[in-house]
Amino acid sequence: MLSFASDYTTGAHPAILKRLGDTNFEALGGYGTDKYCASAAEKIKAAFGCPEGEVFFLVGGTQTNQVIISTMLASHEGVISADTGHVNVHEAGAIEYTGHKVIGLGGKDGKLSAKAVEDYVKRFYGDASYEHMVFPGMVYVSFPTEYGTLYSKKELEDIYGVCKRYGMVFYIDGARLGYGLEGFSNDVKPCDLHALCDVFYVGGTKVGALCGEAVVFTHGNAPKHFITQVKQRGAMLAKGRLLGIQFDVLFTDGLYFEISRHAIEMSEKLKNVLKRKGCMFFLESPTNQQFVVMEDSKLEELSKHVSFGWWEKYDESRTVVRFATSWSTTEGDLAELEKYL
Amino acid sequence: MLSFASDYTTGAHPAILKRLGDTNFEALGGYGTDKYCASAAEKIKAAFGCPEGEVFFLVGGTQTNQVIISTMLASHEGVISADTGHVNVHEAGAIEYTGHKVIGLGGKDGKLSAKAVEDYVKRFYGDASYEHMVFPGMVYVSFPTEYGTLYSKKELEDIYGVCKRYGMVFYIDGARLGYGLEGFSNDVKPCDLHALCDVFYVGGTKVGALCGEAVVFTHGNAPKHFITQVKQRGAMLAKGRLLGIQFDVLFTDGLYFEISRHAIEMSEKLKNVLKRKGCMFFLESPTNQQFVVMEDSKLEELSKHVSFGWWEKYDESRTVVRFATSWSTTEGDLAELEKYL
Amino acid sequence: MLSFASDYTTGAHPAILKRLGDTNFEALGGYGTDKYCASAAEKIKAAFGCPEGEVFFLVGGTQTNQVIISTMLASHEGVISADTGHVNVHEAGAIEYTGHKVIGLGGKDGKLSAKAVEDYVKRFYGDASYEHMVFPGMVYVSFPTEYGTLYSKKELEDIYGVCKRYGMVFYIDGARLGYGLEGFSNDVKPCDLHALCDVFYVGGTKVGALCGEAVVFTHGNAPKHFITQVKQRGAMLAKGRLLGIQFDVLFTDGLYFEISRHAIEMSEKLKNVLKRKGCMFFLESPTNQQFVVMEDSKLEELSKHVSFGWWEKYDESRTVVRFATSWSTTEGDLAELEKYL
Amino acid sequence: MLSFASDYTTGAHPAILKRLGDTNFEALGGYGTDKYCASAAEKIKAAFGCPEGEVFFLVGGTQTNQVIISTMLASHEGVISADTGHVNVHEAGAIEYTGHKVIGLGGKDGKLSAKAVEDYVKRFYGDASYEHMVFPGMVYVSFPTEYGTLYSKKELEDIYGVCKRYGMVFYIDGARLGYGLEGFSNDVKPCDLHALCDVFYVGGTKVGALCGEAVVFTHGNAPKHFITQVKQRGAMLAKGRLLGIQFDVLFTDGLYFEISRHAIEMSEKLKNVLKRKGCMFFLESPTNQQFVVMEDSKLEELSKHVSFGWWEKYDESRTVVRFATSWSTTEGDLAELEKYL
Repeated sequence: MLSFASDYTTGAHPAILKRLGDTNFEALGGYGTDKYCASAAEKIKAAFGCPEGEVFFLVGGTQTNQVIISTMLASHEGVISADTGHVNVHEAGAIEYTGHKVIGLGGKDGKLSAKAVEDYVKRFYGDASYEHMVFPGMVYVSFPTEYGTLYSKKELEDIYGVCKRYGMVFYIDGARLGYGLEGFSNDVKPCDLHALCDVFYVGGTKVGALCGEAVVFTHGNAPKHFITQVKQRGAMLAKGRLLGIQFDVLFTDGLYFEISRHAIEMSEKLKNVLKRKGCMFFLESPTNQQFVVMEDSKLEELSKHVSFGWWEKYDESRTVVRFATSWSTTEGDLAELEKYL
Repeated sequence: MLSFASDYTTGAHPAILKRLGDTNFEALGGYGTDKYCASAAEKIKAAFGCPEGEVFFLVGGTQTNQVIISTMLASHEGVISADTGHVNVHEAGAIEYTGHKVIGLGGKDGKLSAKAVEDYVKRFYGDASYEHMVFPGMVYVSFPTEYGTLYSKKELEDIYGVCKRYGMVFYIDGARLGYGLEGFSNDVKPCDLHALCDVFYVGGTKVGALCGEAVVFTHGNAPKHFITQVKQRGAMLAKGRLLGIQFDVLFTDGLYFEISRHAIEMSEKLKNVLKRKGCMFFLESPTNQQFVVMEDSKLEELSKHVSFGWWEKYDESRTVVRFATSWSTTEGDLAELEKYL
Repeated sequence: MLSFASDYTTGAHPAILKRLGDTNFEALGGYGTDKYCASAAEKIKAAFGCPEGEVFFLVGGTQTNQVIISTMLASHEGVISADTGHVNVHEAGAIEYTGHKVIGLGGKDGKLSAKAVEDYVKRFYGDASYEHMVFPGMVYVSFPTEYGTLYSKKELEDIYGVCKRYGMVFYIDGARLGYGLEGFSNDVKPCDLHALCDVFYVGGTKVGALCGEAVVFTHGNAPKHFITQVKQRGAMLAKGRLLGIQFDVLFTDGLYFEISRHAIEMSEKLKNVLKRKGCMFFLESPTNQQFVVMEDSKLEELSKHVSFGWWEKYDESRTVVRFATSWSTTEGDLAELEKYL
Repeated sequence: MLSFASDYTTGAHPAILKRLGDTNFEALGGYGTDKYCASAAEKIKAAFGCPEGEVFFLVGGTQTNQVIISTMLASHEGVISADTGHVNVHEAGAIEYTGHKVIGLGGKDGKLSAKAVEDYVKRFYGDASYEHMVFPGMVYVSFPTEYGTLYSKKELEDIYGVCKRYGMVFYIDGARLGYGLEGFSNDVKPCDLHALCDVFYVGGTKVGALCGEAVVFTHGNAPKHFITQVKQRGAMLAKGRLLGIQFDVLFTDGLYFEISRHAIEMSEKLKNVLKRKGCMFFLESPTNQQFVVMEDSKLEELSKHVSFGWWEKYDESRTVVRFATSWSTTEGDLAELEKYL
């Protein structure tokens, strides 16, 4: 069946599989001590213009959020997120599982504003009984957001400014980072990121890898004994090579950005297809996810041939659905979709 | 200084202190195995018309919420609360500390509606990816609420109905239960409670005890090995007699209700004082807490003579403040307050 | 029934009850902000010769261990304890509940040796895979131990020396601190303690209070936002006055040490009674707990008249039992016991 | 460098890489809902003769232990393990992180005896204060153990018998299951396992996969909402296909057992090499790990050419080291090792 269900429905970019094969019989140290992890870390630091950064590899997105948030927050602190943030909605309470509150604030199109954060924090410290409340210790945003939207460089700077003023860590979830950086109209460059936050991750799973996310602590601020804390959270991969090799390939000759760009091109063409078919857009997305509102009866018919993401009910008879492109989307896929629509 | 700051500013009802003295040299078993705990439990079951209930004594309110919620929820479940609920705002993340999410829903005057709960739960089970979300396993309400308001019997029945339909526990936080049951216009009788929820607690700390809350599991549904789980959470009192004796006194000859009634009478008179002084009420409260909106300049002056609770900013120049009565409030206190206002 | 079951079977020293009565109608701030908590803290700092210490009041012993250990350890650290330590055996896993391992080491008569600790820590850091193991972050001892034995000043100094060399916190559980400091042959003075460890607590529950333990961080090392963390763990008492007043009384005119001395005198007399009756001592205890080995048949008979603590089976037909004295033990109690033995 | 360091130094069995390539462009559902996970689960149930089992795929070993133990234990329960068990020593406290105590019991050659378990549990329930202690809720053994030793079928039956008598779950960690089942002198057959325990896992990472462990709940006893609990613990893989495909290959035509057998043959030959070179064996291991005691000076020299595992100091001048074979060990590797020894 034709799939626009998500950006993790196919396997890995062929260059990754090839390299896994080429290196298969090398005996390497476990737990991320191998040379490929080291090489990949260097390439990532170069790609993001951040030589003083510290890079670690983890397996999945929720795991990465859980590990970063729980190792960077003090016990009495929670993390501020948009109400619609992945950590607040779709991680089965993984953050709370580690003892920390997710403080959900209202946002727009999946985005949190610096003003909303500052208002909250000011009110917090102005409250006579704030010592009996969860301290805001971190701000979490996803780039792109869960709705495919993007923060401008200025917006990220403003949020980071609030974070610095109030002693909060600023964390950018980059599960789909490539699709954001190559996003239509995006003004954040890879080498900007390290100055825009304290920690971010470069998503692999959704950008052409079998699995894997690369965490970047931007300025020598990795938690003490991070390796042990990763192990303690069950997040350490024995054959760390699997992560190192994949990221080494993704960050050789700019492959990560190249395949992201491809997905964005496909997404722009997808937009055109959807427009031609008269679809109503739920919001304007410059990235690889397009959200449209469609009649339930039409969706039922369509779902016989195409898989897509069911998002939320729009009204009695219509639903918001998501079509996602990825590194592996082809022109042929788009043509086929147009036929079914 | 004259204090209307809260209902826990003074010590204990004199009958409690007397009884602590009278029994002081009796050698009793520890950890709640003494005869006073047994006797108090029986009296509470009688007072609430619930012979098949199971009663346990804990020390404080946040502790009680933490213990009940974390022992009654399964790992993958969270608790629904009004956004303004004590567990969501003023417990420093005590619930999340145990690994569970507080799912805050918008309410009105501190109250959650059956409809809001049902809408949320329906949407949850209708979501294609609900397996990746925190299951709603419990509904938490406070009676009276943090704003001094009350649920009617019908409102509680409706919420409990939703809970039963969707397999959720219904828990009523009774930190100020006496002030609710004796509240002006309240239609919930003590003997109604056991049929209105799965578990509730009878607040002692704020209703004349030095400390102590009595948990009532209404129908043989106490968590397995509850004693061990209480100990594990650091919530077991070695000299359990301190709790048993206090509740034994409070539930002898209806003292608990009598002193609650007294606080309500004082609160109704307080309302009149505030009205006479032209205060603007923030909301209508039938219990022992009155919320009024006052000019900041006036509050500054008043705070030299009277302590009260600062609630939240109302606008640029005005603030919502709380005046609380208690078992120990006197007519003299009210006269003095009127003088200062 | 005559009770030697423990040191927490009776109520409180009468001076405490009297003071609770005298102050009962004063309106005081909650959560430990009242003047009695402040006064008690000052008196404790004076009694222990530690003006730069920071004092906080908690309700119970397991709770205190749980709060101190979980707020002072980093996520990847555990606490070393004697195998027989209270935190390792009799707290229902309260430490593990907060995510930290108790690393049990073999000891003798309830005591841990500096050598055993150092050997363990050396082996740990010498292990090639120590990054995959729980870091030893704290050493816990109880003074007196669970077997009524005492560390000499030299022994504590040695353990603290190891702690300093390896960056570990040293914590002394003083649930029965008074009975240790007044213990027969003890050479640790109250004013020595602050230089012998990073944190200790002064047990109230077992030394004449209704409840309450006073935590002393010895050198400006209280965890950041400790109040919030206490609240988060459900350990904050609303009417903090109950703790403040009790400790204020205990540390006025040396009452704490006086009643401890009384219990030790009673214990020395108890030893004589037990010796006269030909009991076999399980170990030599200089404090208020005496452990003897008795025939099960005899114990069964005795238990009709006297309550005592069942410790552990000694062999097929004999059991180790504990007799404890306290502030409230009288000469009459001893005479009665001698009669029954 | 020649490596006998562990069984996870090389990549994956070539058949796995080939299949990953062949299926790479198929669009599949995420999170384990794909057809390969379903197929692999069926094949595993068939291989282990357990049609009524429930199979789930996780990424790594520590993660699997953490997920299984924390989802199968009640809050007040801990897990019994040999002192030397992986969960007790080399998981950085991953079990305690979830709130549960590991109850370490002394063993021999890495093995726990039914008698030791029963003695412990009997003493537990015979203790007057067992309600204040961690309940033994599960027994954990590894097969093979961390020392390469094996339980006989009778030994497992006996432990399971104790578990059933005292209401404990019996869990077998099969990180190296293949090497145990094909182990020299082993009498446990694959189809025996489901009747010998409540849950076990089939290790992939160490038996030819890039990553992945297959959990088998043997009799309809998977925890409720297991998927959500997996997600909550950060252990859900988005591209579940990576696990499904690998296990599908491993359990097609008995590949899993075939490559295990190969490693055992290599291990028997390795034993002969070590014997010929006069090495002193630390213990007798019938599986793929051999432990020998060697002079430190010799080890230093050897480590220039060969990597192996440093286990523990044997005495002042000697150390216990581990040589492990795997699916990818060759005769050539053995010849080279013999040369260096």
